[in-house]
Amino acid sequence: MTSPFQFQTTHTDGGARAGVFTTPHGEVATPQFMPVGTLASVKALDPEDLTRLGATMILANAYHLRLRPGDAMIRTMGGLHRFMQWDGPILTDSGGFQVFSLEGLRTIAEEGVAFRSHLDGSLQQFTPESVMQIERNLGADVIMQFDHVVPGQSPHELAKVAMERSVRWLERCRVAFDRLQADDTLAPTPVQALFPIVQGGIHADLRRDSARAIMNCGDWVGYGVGGLSVGEAKPDMYAMLDVVNGELPTHRPRYLMGVGFPEDLVEGVARGIDLFDCVAPTRMGRTGAFFTGTGRKNIKNAQWRLDPAPLEDGCTCAGTRFSKAYIRHLFVAEEILGLRLLSLHNVHFLVALMRDARAAVQAGTFAGWSRDWLARYHSSKTMS
Amino acid sequence: MTSPFQFQTTHTDGGARAGVFTTPHGEVATPQFMPVGTLASVKALDPEDLTRLGATMILANAYHLRLRPGDAMIRTMGGLHRFMQWDGPILTDSGGFQVFSLEGLRTIAEEGVAFRSHLDGSLQQFTPESVMQIERNLGADVIMQFDHVVPGQSPHELAKVAMERSVRWLERCRVAFDRLQADDTLAPTPVQALFPIVQGGIHADLRRDSARAIMNCGDWVGYGVGGLSVGEAKPDMYAMLDVVNGELPTHRPRYLMGVGFPEDLVEGVARGIDLFDCVAPTRMGRTGAFFTGTGRKNIKNAQWRLDPAPLEDGCTCAGTRFSKAYIRHLFVAEEILGLRLLSLHNVHFLVALMRDARAAVQAGTFAGWSRDWLARYHSSKTMS
Repeated sequence: MTSPFQFQTTHTDGGARAGVFTTPHGEVATPQFMPVGTLASVKALDPEDLTRLGATMILANAYHLRLRPGDAMIRTMGGLHRFMQWDGPILTDSGGFQVFSLEGLRTIAEEGVAFRSHLDGSLQQFTPESVMQIERNLGADVIMQFDHVVPGQSPHELAKVAMERSVRWLERCRVAFDRLQADDTLAPTPVQALFPIVQGGIHADLRRDSARAIMNCGDWVGYGVGGLSVGEAKPDMYAMLDVVNGELPTHRPRYLMGVGFPEDLVEGVARGIDLFDCVAPTRMGRTGAFFTGTGRKNIKNAQWRLDPAPLEDGCTCAGTRFSKAYIRHLFVAEEILGLRLLSLHNVHFLVALMRDARAAVQAGTFAGWSRDWLARYHSSKTMS
Repeated sequence: MTSPFQFQTTHTDGGARAGVFTTPHGEVATPQFMPVGTLASVKALDPEDLTRLGATMILANAYHLRLRPGDAMIRTMGGLHRFMQWDGPILTDSGGFQVFSLEGLRTIAEEGVAFRSHLDGSLQQFTPESVMQIERNLGADVIMQFDHVVPGQSPHELAKVAMERSVRWLERCRVAFDRLQADDTLAPTPVQALFPIVQGGIHADLRRDSARAIMNCGDWVGYGVGGLSVGEAKPDMYAMLDVVNGELPTHRPRYLMGVGFPEDLVEGVARGIDLFDCVAPTRMGRTGAFFTGTGRKNIKNAQWRLDPAPLEDGCTCAGTRFSKAYIRHLFVAEEILGLRLLSLHNVHFLVALMRDARAAVQAGTFAGWSRDWLARYHSSKTMS
């Protein structure tokens, strides 16, 4: 049987690539930004909004959905796609990041992680095997391995332990995943893809070892790069991407997890990354922050009080009919429409940014485009 | 010059009427429910949502907008229509209800009401004249007089004082309004309509006196009926509508202020009301309550946990693609999309209800339609 997953790189330009990632629920042009719907909802937006702003693939989170409303419940309802009415590709994060963030509430062992729910304190356990079942029940197209995540500034010794454990857990994930693919054929999405996650903190040797160990486990539909944008300095993140870029096979998509900000997306594309996700556009939008080509601004700033212009000239997001003065009023008055409009704008900004990056790669002009884009974006730091 | 305001009754059926109210910003088929955008935003919805669900005329509030962002600011931005990007008719309430609700924060005199802002405690004054200027600056099509509002259960003496003052204030409003229409020709909406408000609490004689006194002041484009649905018993409200219905001229639209619930809309149409408004559909939507043809329900109820059906079978609101199970999950998880979907549904419900009432009047079947509709709606009280 031909796999429903394919990846075709159509253009390369320096380290950057443009391609098409095919999944059971459709194609994703890469590079691509994936909006995050942690709890099966991209906050304040609906599937129609996402389609209109150009999103093609979205995320959900196994940890959060396991706790509420429960992966078994979502399976009963026909899986994530039907539950949240999103017909396009979905990726679920395994919950590793969330579980390991529960400082003081979790116990780590080789078998897995025991933790207390952040909602009701109930005792839970995540193992590579249980997480594969949860992600099977949710039915995303791409599911991430259960991994051991450590803070971005972790010393070599701790990062090494976590990285090596993540490789061992990957092997257990694969066994469980293969068994489920073979036996659990009535799952919402019968054929899924399991992505491994390259770990290793900010230590080049560990990143290299991680990538090689993962590749030694076999071939993978795509590769995650995790444990970045979690507190380390940006130059460290970019250096790790350079290392990983030199190791991973070029004919598979690479997904940089939890990243992020516009400048990081551009830097990531330059280093061979194809897929990104981050809660930033919606989370920041709820606080009044919005992206523009000349940097990040905040709509609550008094300078916009009487500004009749849209959030950004030339923007094509759904909010362009509204003035900054109006959206500022909505925020000051705590009207829900305000945070909805900024969430729309910010998600659109990142999706459109990746569309422009793709076009630049296709045109062979990525180096100049990205240099100019970053210079203009960073110019705001002297302007405001 | 022909007035941009016209009202044509096309059908009558018992006390119910169907017609068309023409304004500078378009036509409104009556009976009609007007969603409320207190602060220049119908909470959680945008103008496109409103158009799609069939709303044709909306409300905003002079008291709230005076305080934030300020009527002068909105005028600078081109008036309410441009500010909030709603091209259809708008009505502004004068703020009488809000000002008189500021128990302990306001001083009532014949000149007007001095009060402290509920936002920052600043001292403000509303007079008939100042309110006409505020509503001129906002630029709605229909503006309401500044009136003296008393609680729904007020004794005869108090209701009489307030009603008589409202008539005196109406005369002052008209003088100020006429002067502004003549002199302030650069206002956002140069030709507006001033609606008087029939007051009198739950006292039939006062309601009759109020209507007659208002009509003695001259002819009006339309008539407001205020001070109802503010704590009095429903039979009292309906009785007052019967009284007012017998007094007001049949060739002008009647607007029942702040009403309301589905059953009250149907009862109101039966008593000659053409226009309604209420915050109930959005306010209740934010708490999980939703209207159905068999009564009001709450999406947080555990009975919907695995329900794959939409909020109501046959509903055509934008949320029908989503299951009750999903929307319940959104509420439990406090996702913004949940309250947005219920707000959409509830506003759509009332707009569609008035569309159905209109069709029944046009078909001459209103009596049977309303009897059946009310019986089915009230049946929920024994069901849940």
